[in-house]
Amino acid sequence: MTSTRATPLERLADVLADDMAQVNALIRARMMSENAPRIPEVTAHLIEAGGKRIRPMMTLAAARMCGYEGDAHIKLAATVEFIHTATLLHDDVVDESAKRRGRPTANLLWDNKSSVLVGDYLFARAFQLMVEPGNLRALSILSNAAAVIAEGEVLQLTAAQNLATTEATYMQVIRGKTAALFSAATQVGPVIAGSPEAQVQALYDYGDALGICFQIVDDYLDYGGAGDGLGKNLGDDFRERKLTLPVIRAIAAADATERTFWERTIGRGQQQDGDLDHAMTLLTRHGALASTRDTARHWAAQARKSVAALPDHPLRDMLADLADFVVARVN
Amino acid sequence: MTSTRATPLERLADVLADDMAQVNALIRARMMSENAPRIPEVTAHLIEAGGKRIRPMMTLAAARMCGYEGDAHIKLAATVEFIHTATLLHDDVVDESAKRRGRPTANLLWDNKSSVLVGDYLFARAFQLMVEPGNLRALSILSNAAAVIAEGEVLQLTAAQNLATTEATYMQVIRGKTAALFSAATQVGPVIAGSPEAQVQALYDYGDALGICFQIVDDYLDYGGAGDGLGKNLGDDFRERKLTLPVIRAIAAADATERTFWERTIGRGQQQDGDLDHAMTLLTRHGALASTRDTARHWAAQARKSVAALPDHPLRDMLADLADFVVARVN
Repeated sequence: MTSTRATPLERLADVLADDMAQVNALIRARMMSENAPRIPEVTAHLIEAGGKRIRPMMTLAAARMCGYEGDAHIKLAATVEFIHTATLLHDDVVDESAKRRGRPTANLLWDNKSSVLVGDYLFARAFQLMVEPGNLRALSILSNAAAVIAEGEVLQLTAAQNLATTEATYMQVIRGKTAALFSAATQVGPVIAGSPEAQVQALYDYGDALGICFQIVDDYLDYGGAGDGLGKNLGDDFRERKLTLPVIRAIAAADATERTFWERTIGRGQQQDGDLDHAMTLLTRHGALASTRDTARHWAAQARKSVAALPDHPLRDMLADLADFVVARVN
Repeated sequence: MTSTRATPLERLADVLADDMAQVNALIRARMMSENAPRIPEVTAHLIEAGGKRIRPMMTLAAARMCGYEGDAHIKLAATVEFIHTATLLHDDVVDESAKRRGRPTANLLWDNKSSVLVGDYLFARAFQLMVEPGNLRALSILSNAAAVIAEGEVLQLTAAQNLATTEATYMQVIRGKTAALFSAATQVGPVIAGSPEAQVQALYDYGDALGICFQIVDDYLDYGGAGDGLGKNLGDDFRERKLTLPVIRAIAAADATERTFWERTIGRGQQQDGDLDHAMTLLTRHGALASTRDTARHWAAQARKSVAALPDHPLRDMLADLADFVVARVN
């Protein structure tokens, strides 16, 4: 498994296997509810659908490479995954999604009500878990991240359909909805290890850049991917009228006719057969996909650069390689 | 204002006015979001609709009567109100409510998406606030309460429409959805004051009993009230097919014909004109409203009894009177 042909994610999973087994056991234990069996049903549907657990792995890797030897990282990693799962449940309600990780969404299998309330339960479970290690700085980092995530989601909701959305707003949205949890996940590692501030900052920067890269790649693949087996459909963002980076750039370069097209399809949501194809043509015409790929590569390079400030460690190199691996999906 | 004719709630509000002004200022400051103006819009709609702020007042009263002199109680009281407001936003989505505190609900004025995401933001803000005083026991109490609340809501959702719902399940639901926040609100007062365990327990017991009483009164008034000016409509629970105490008791005493009625209206939700009137007739026939009132009185007496264990203090007497005041709504 540690052959050089394994992906950086596989190598991380291999090195962190013992810790991750503890995280998974803790997740299973804490998603239970004696009183309300609907909770583990809904949660298991999502948690056991085979997410990559990339966020909790970030916490484990960051803590281990900083020489942490206690067990708080297990609880904080489970916290991170619970926050992530809660946001997925609520996202699917907000986006009216029908598919997640290749399976029907919980809001479809049960109902929106269950997704809202079980999401709330998992949020609360996340906070219970993060309190247990008793590290106030880690608590502050993770509770701040939860607020920034929710703020990013609201901002995305109000920016959706608004053709005047700028790249600056887009960056705020993805820093909130995606990067905030990555940077919190990596930052708490050195915090519980009591590492020097420079390392805390380096791992914050790494998580921030990796999260931004991750989301830009996701937004690219929504137009540029060829079915990546992750259960996401090409054009979902177009149908949901989200102003993602490729579209923002294509709109910035649009002539009057093209602008009319974007106003109709994204602004007013009047979409018909062939519109997605035409949108892709416009993205290509203005080089919006290529430049989005360049931006993703820039953030992958930033991520790699951030960990360079950390002491030499095999996990450090895997994190650096992970950034390249994430952006390789758009090559 | 401190005349003996004022209600216990008015007397509490009067004595705690300075603290409450600080809580309100903190709530206004923390509900802001520079990046997402939708957040303060939605929050202000609900927060400024004139809730009674009874829960944060419990924290202030409990802390003050235990001799607390710091300012952590302000932050914890605001935490409690934020958790409450977040649950109201999500409740209205789940219940598909159109009215709250006499005004149209946020889910109606904006949309369900905004209510879900702004609720998430307020939850996260609550956790940020509760972390700030740095009291791990208070953190544990409040984060546990958040989990119990969400669990109670899920349990209510799955118990709704189920005629086999027992009084034990009903008690679990209301302990979760209502009493857990009251008992956490009162318990953190003696905790931050460093009071003896007996006082921590007494104030926990008081909040638990008051919260249970509060919810039973609410459930009574949904059938037995004559429009209490709180913006709640007679029969809402019937229309939402909730198994509340009066209905559970009427069903337990139902003959075959009556059972068919409950199965149609609550079990299958096939309701027509006159059904609510007939439901009220059945509740009266079996003394279900009278016995629900007795149960509410029992819990008010429990609440009064709990604070008797605390040292003599004017606030202690106001809390004792508050229990009688809450149950007086059903007299």
